[in-house]
Amino acid sequence: MTPKIGNEALAAQVMPRPRERIVVTARDLFYRHGVKGVGVETIAEAAGTNKMTLYRHFGSKDDLIAECVRQAVAECFAELDELTARHSDDPMGELQAWIEHAAGYIVSEPRGCEMANAAVELAEEDHPVRRIIEESKKRFRDHLVSLCQRAGLGQPDLAADTLMLLHEGARSSRQSEGVQGSSEHFKSAAEGVIASFGERRR
Amino acid sequence: MTPKIGNEALAAQVMPRPRERIVVTARDLFYRHGVKGVGVETIAEAAGTNKMTLYRHFGSKDDLIAECVRQAVAECFAELDELTARHSDDPMGELQAWIEHAAGYIVSEPRGCEMANAAVELAEEDHPVRRIIEESKKRFRDHLVSLCQRAGLGQPDLAADTLMLLHEGARSSRQSEGVQGSSEHFKSAAEGVIASFGERRR
Repeated sequence: MTPKIGNEALAAQVMPRPRERIVVTARDLFYRHGVKGVGVETIAEAAGTNKMTLYRHFGSKDDLIAECVRQAVAECFAELDELTARHSDDPMGELQAWIEHAAGYIVSEPRGCEMANAAVELAEEDHPVRRIIEESKKRFRDHLVSLCQRAGLGQPDLAADTLMLLHEGARSSRQSEGVQGSSEHFKSAAEGVIASFGERRR
Repeated sequence: MTPKIGNEALAAQVMPRPRERIVVTARDLFYRHGVKGVGVETIAEAAGTNKMTLYRHFGSKDDLIAECVRQAVAECFAELDELTARHSDDPMGELQAWIEHAAGYIVSEPRGCEMANAAVELAEEDHPVRRIIEESKKRFRDHLVSLCQRAGLGQPDLAADTLMLLHEGARSSRQSEGVQGSSEHFKSAAEGVIASFGERRR
């Protein structure tokens, strides 16, 4: 005989736990309204819980922001790793696939980069979340340098930084210029850079 | 006999008027702490006035933000006009001077672009200040297209957007990566783009 599942056990199977719900909800609200544009009370309510529970899981709003940024960073690198795995013997293919992939989210995500936006709002130089953001951007930069090296581009450090600046610029411009701005041309611009650094190959 | 100058008249000669003081102070505080990171009370106090006077000059905090953004835009284009005037017969010299000029403030201004930052914080799509920001970015883009055309670059639209994205990216990266990040290479990256589009000349 199959044991009957109680309501609570069923809810636990279907519904994510409060901590998870809080983070998912906070990321969504922070992204749409900015980390200073939304308070913990609103987040707790939207996550179907309360402020006390939120503070039991996260000691402060900054702790919650830190966890949201960490998850955003993890997702971002999981996507990059997937691209690397999918093009394991073809670094140039990987580079082109990254451009294609980035061009997609640059257009579809009007609010730009979660990490860069948080850096704008968390202006205090020693804010703990800034360190997480800085590290993630450095890691992304290292990833691009390695990719440009593997793809055989000339001056891979400069090629990577040029691509990095185009990418960060497109994320920012999508937001400040709207959809019909220079960010539309991220793909052509990045492909032009690859062609140009391809020719500078030693 | 020289008429005596009263204290008030003297103060009016030396001190900027309240409206001006409020805008200067607000721009500084908004830039350092973000437009949501500082309240009107703090601004009024730092400007040596009070909330009532602030609200007499600006109907709302948004009106004050709008005026600050407008002034930032005006300064930015005054600088660009000055570069144009200084290199009136040498558009390529003007382009190179712009890169040099931009590379300077990219490093020296750790908080990046006032306009782009405000767009991050003022997340509501129909926020009136967003329109001012969008228009200023479009005007800047048009300026770069015209400059690339005059400098005889091939594909001037794409060249301008590539430079625009590098510029916006460097402003954003300076903030999220710190000073030793990809923004350090804005100048080399931009010069590489000019060389590359120079070769694509028809």
